[in-house]
Amino acid sequence: MFSFSVAKQDKLARVGRIETSHGAIDTPYLVPVATSASVRTLDSFDLKKLGAQCVLANTYHLFLRPGDTVVKKLGGLHTFMDFQGPIFTDSGGFQTFSLGLGREHNINKLGFFPEGKRSEQKQKTLARVTDAGVHFQSIYDGSRHLLNPKSSMRIQRNLGGDIIMAFDECTSPLSDYDYTKKAMERTHRWALESLRYHDRKQALYGIIQGGWWKDLRDASTKFITDLPFEGIAIGGSLGHSKKDMHAILDRLVPQLDERPRHLLGIGEIDDIFECVARGVDTFDCVMPTRIARRGNLYIHPESGGRVSNKFRINIKSGKYKDDGKPIDPHCGCPTCRSVSRAYLRHLYSINELSYYRLATLHNLHFMLSLMGQIRESIKSGTFVKLKRKWLKG
Amino acid sequence: MFSFSVAKQDKLARVGRIETSHGAIDTPYLVPVATSASVRTLDSFDLKKLGAQCVLANTYHLFLRPGDTVVKKLGGLHTFMDFQGPIFTDSGGFQTFSLGLGREHNINKLGFFPEGKRSEQKQKTLARVTDAGVHFQSIYDGSRHLLNPKSSMRIQRNLGGDIIMAFDECTSPLSDYDYTKKAMERTHRWALESLRYHDRKQALYGIIQGGWWKDLRDASTKFITDLPFEGIAIGGSLGHSKKDMHAILDRLVPQLDERPRHLLGIGEIDDIFECVARGVDTFDCVMPTRIARRGNLYIHPESGGRVSNKFRINIKSGKYKDDGKPIDPHCGCPTCRSVSRAYLRHLYSINELSYYRLATLHNLHFMLSLMGQIRESIKSGTFVKLKRKWLKG
Repeated sequence: MFSFSVAKQDKLARVGRIETSHGAIDTPYLVPVATSASVRTLDSFDLKKLGAQCVLANTYHLFLRPGDTVVKKLGGLHTFMDFQGPIFTDSGGFQTFSLGLGREHNINKLGFFPEGKRSEQKQKTLARVTDAGVHFQSIYDGSRHLLNPKSSMRIQRNLGGDIIMAFDECTSPLSDYDYTKKAMERTHRWALESLRYHDRKQALYGIIQGGWWKDLRDASTKFITDLPFEGIAIGGSLGHSKKDMHAILDRLVPQLDERPRHLLGIGEIDDIFECVARGVDTFDCVMPTRIARRGNLYIHPESGGRVSNKFRINIKSGKYKDDGKPIDPHCGCPTCRSVSRAYLRHLYSINELSYYRLATLHNLHFMLSLMGQIRESIKSGTFVKLKRKWLKG
Repeated sequence: MFSFSVAKQDKLARVGRIETSHGAIDTPYLVPVATSASVRTLDSFDLKKLGAQCVLANTYHLFLRPGDTVVKKLGGLHTFMDFQGPIFTDSGGFQTFSLGLGREHNINKLGFFPEGKRSEQKQKTLARVTDAGVHFQSIYDGSRHLLNPKSSMRIQRNLGGDIIMAFDECTSPLSDYDYTKKAMERTHRWALESLRYHDRKQALYGIIQGGWWKDLRDASTKFITDLPFEGIAIGGSLGHSKKDMHAILDRLVPQLDERPRHLLGIGEIDDIFECVARGVDTFDCVMPTRIARRGNLYIHPESGGRVSNKFRINIKSGKYKDDGKPIDPHCGCPTCRSVSRAYLRHLYSINELSYYRLATLHNLHFMLSLMGQIRESIKSGTFVKLKRKWLKG
């Protein structure tokens, strides 16, 4: 069971609702990432308390550990991780990109060098793409595997998510036109195969590729939207900058119909505003949880958050040593209601495990409540005003 | 405000209640350890949900990081860690032992080599004991400090716990008679000084030393109990085996009056039963939380727990790979009500941080509910039966 309806639109920004047999998702929504069937540091009670409506788990990681057949035997992801809301799974395409071109070009999908790996040194590729699929080596034990539309659909069926992704080939911003075109055509063939092999009880999203070339994105948008996918995901390299990403969305989204639109792997605060403004319904991003673990905690504009500081404070800073205020006095999360910046800084600096969860709870609560504000603002016609308030300066 | 009353006694085992201005502790009780103002992996909501009545924090660790003056500035430990129940602090004596004789003798207080360090190689001592106190070097930055009764009382006052410990010198099971006697006499002088310098709003426990020599333990028991401490702690080397420890308690406890008795640093399941049977009221031990983080999870006798397996399963074992049962089907903790052994093994094996908390919640719930059962059994005169059920085989 899957349906989507748009309740209100404000220019391109829209408020809607995805219905699945595991419940609803109010859009726009940032889907928390549960890579290996766990939103890092949190448990299922935490997710309930945060009001997380859905999560996204990774096919690639779960295929390798603990194995999709183990998850199936244990009743599928919902039972395995004790999460009863809608679950997305990705197709494994992006992770095999990371192992292949991502390593070879030492680059991530937005053309930035991954944090902490700023050297120009290329890494040995661990994946090889052919028309038959992606041959790759496990980063854990070196074992060799093949992911393709058929195996990706089989794995995603075993995992038992509500919303699954077609298997695709993601390219790098350093890939040339010819390679990007070839990869896009392969992605299109794989889209057809994904449709053939997928479990019809699961909602399948097709993925638009084409890098940052207008004609390729146009062709991919046409090809994917012509197919009977339940939703449309926008994947792959989105150019070399946020501006490029906006230009791609400006061109691509007006070509889409009413089906739900998912933007893969994006989710900084300014991105959310800019992409919701351009008509995106759902996002998934490890950012809020990952940066929390590194000491970066979100704050509202009222507390000094702005684009230039990425709406973050870094709790490591010495100035919080004896700061008795909560992370953000304008936040109502469990962490802010309970402990001070000084306490969190203390836990962080001695590497206490409780830090990681308290920080994650804050950042995730922050983002989910921001998404709620965004939905309300679209409903009341004040989205542009809200966006301006957050992105000014 | 501090009081203690015994409600019921079954031979030497007794049920009682410690009252402090931050609430009551029903005894016998195993005090969860919050070394650096955090029960590892948990937050204050978790402690509330577990019904943890009190915690014990470490003077030594908090003195070094974040500093007792920082904790004081932030309102003391209760506010700092958002725990509103009674808080114990130790005096730092044991940690300075660990840095000194513990390292020199490569030994812990029960005469066992610390786990994972079974080599005979001695380590360089980082502490030197004189009558003026313990001179020690920070393991973090090498800075030099002096802990003595006066500074320990000042630090514990700044931390603001409800129940504090006199500053003592802990000896090793490898210390000879002469050294142990000398250390005991120093401990007695320091007991008098601790009484002089402590904040009378805090309940001060005296610590009995004397190693495993009967005459020394007798002398120390007499000396410490003659002083106006609110409670009596039993510290130091308790011999070379659990049998030695039992013999020491068998001799020592009958010499005590009704004041609450705390056994420092002890708390395996069989120890709890044996020491409650010998009249101990409170324990503190990192065991339940530490072993959880290493994959060792408690199970009830009904689920196969016995002395020989230390009432544990190790979740790392391959046999749990696809085991859909909870850790212990006879446990009602949040973890057991939510997820399977297979899920926990998966999280453990990929080093997911959520594992550590789920495991800690289980082990702590297990121990706190065991303490509740022990209290009930003493009240109803069935403690011996309960003890037999657990310790048989």
